[in-house]
Amino acid sequence: MRVRFVGGDHGSWAVERVLDVAGTALPLTRKLSVTEGDAPAPAGRWTLSGVTSNIRYATAGEAATLRSRQEGLGRPHATRAALIPISKSAEWWALAQDERRAIFEEKSRHIVIGLTTLPGVSRRLHHCRDLEGEAFDFLTWFEYPPEAEAAFDTMLERLRATEEWRYVTHEVDIRLRAA
Amino acid sequence: MRVRFVGGDHGSWAVERVLDVAGTALPLTRKLSVTEGDAPAPAGRWTLSGVTSNIRYATAGEAATLRSRQEGLGRPHATRAALIPISKSAEWWALAQDERRAIFEEKSRHIVIGLTTLPGVSRRLHHCRDLEGEAFDFLTWFEYPPEAEAAFDTMLERLRATEEWRYVTHEVDIRLRAA
Repeated sequence: MRVRFVGGDHGSWAVERVLDVAGTALPLTRKLSVTEGDAPAPAGRWTLSGVTSNIRYATAGEAATLRSRQEGLGRPHATRAALIPISKSAEWWALAQDERRAIFEEKSRHIVIGLTTLPGVSRRLHHCRDLEGEAFDFLTWFEYPPEAEAAFDTMLERLRATEEWRYVTHEVDIRLRAA
Repeated sequence: MRVRFVGGDHGSWAVERVLDVAGTALPLTRKLSVTEGDAPAPAGRWTLSGVTSNIRYATAGEAATLRSRQEGLGRPHATRAALIPISKSAEWWALAQDERRAIFEEKSRHIVIGLTTLPGVSRRLHHCRDLEGEAFDFLTWFEYPPEAEAAFDTMLERLRATEEWRYVTHEVDIRLRAA
């Protein structure tokens, strides 16, 4: 499913801050709109598109653990959100599957670190590296209640200190509040 | 890189036959045009688009073996070609990464079987499952000299008998000759 994130004057999320973690930040806008599938999206200052897709690294066991602990999007008490667009280097993408998997999980514990925030933080990953005209490789969307924000921030700090993150060339961290 | 395959009256490949291996065939046309990147593509009866992308299953060792034995596209003596668009089932795409890898190589020997045709057959894979409006998941393009066709056909026969191919829901086999 195609999902479009539009930064502008419309949308059900108010933008609290835009942080450039690596590379160029996106322009700060008042609102963010999230549109799924063919639903019409508002005009805005910028649009990022991605698609939900198949699992790229998780094993069957890891996927089952994630499914058993995670909650879906749209929970009424999850009034905070984050959109984190990321790109990785050409060096990362030139690695074979087993090399990327080893860095992602065996060395960096990406899934294990992510699990520490479940079920408070719910998450959906969108791929855009193979789409035309997109500036990022991934767009990850998170929703959580205000009291989960500290755990969410700790998780990001831990991920950003991993070997996997040495391959991250562009990362923007956009924080939002249900409007 | 985006690559467009257009079936119609233009292009440097003459269509010899279109075979529906599974699911609906594509309409037979006189010619096939292959356009890379932003180059203008001719109008035609049908267009299939895909993108070259990162490795999805091969290990570093397998990728090195493939690199050491395979030749590139555009060899003057490779006057035959095949375009094989494929889709796999929802069941396949719902599997975790290790499950798909095990079926692909440990059970089906996809890479090992493909290696039997190197360096005669050169190959480029294009992904389209995550693109909008595309009918297939992959488009694989092969180029070979006439004398490699028998080995190519044997390879396809072996692949189509594997466990991996039980997940193939749509497959068309288009054979071409340099025009």
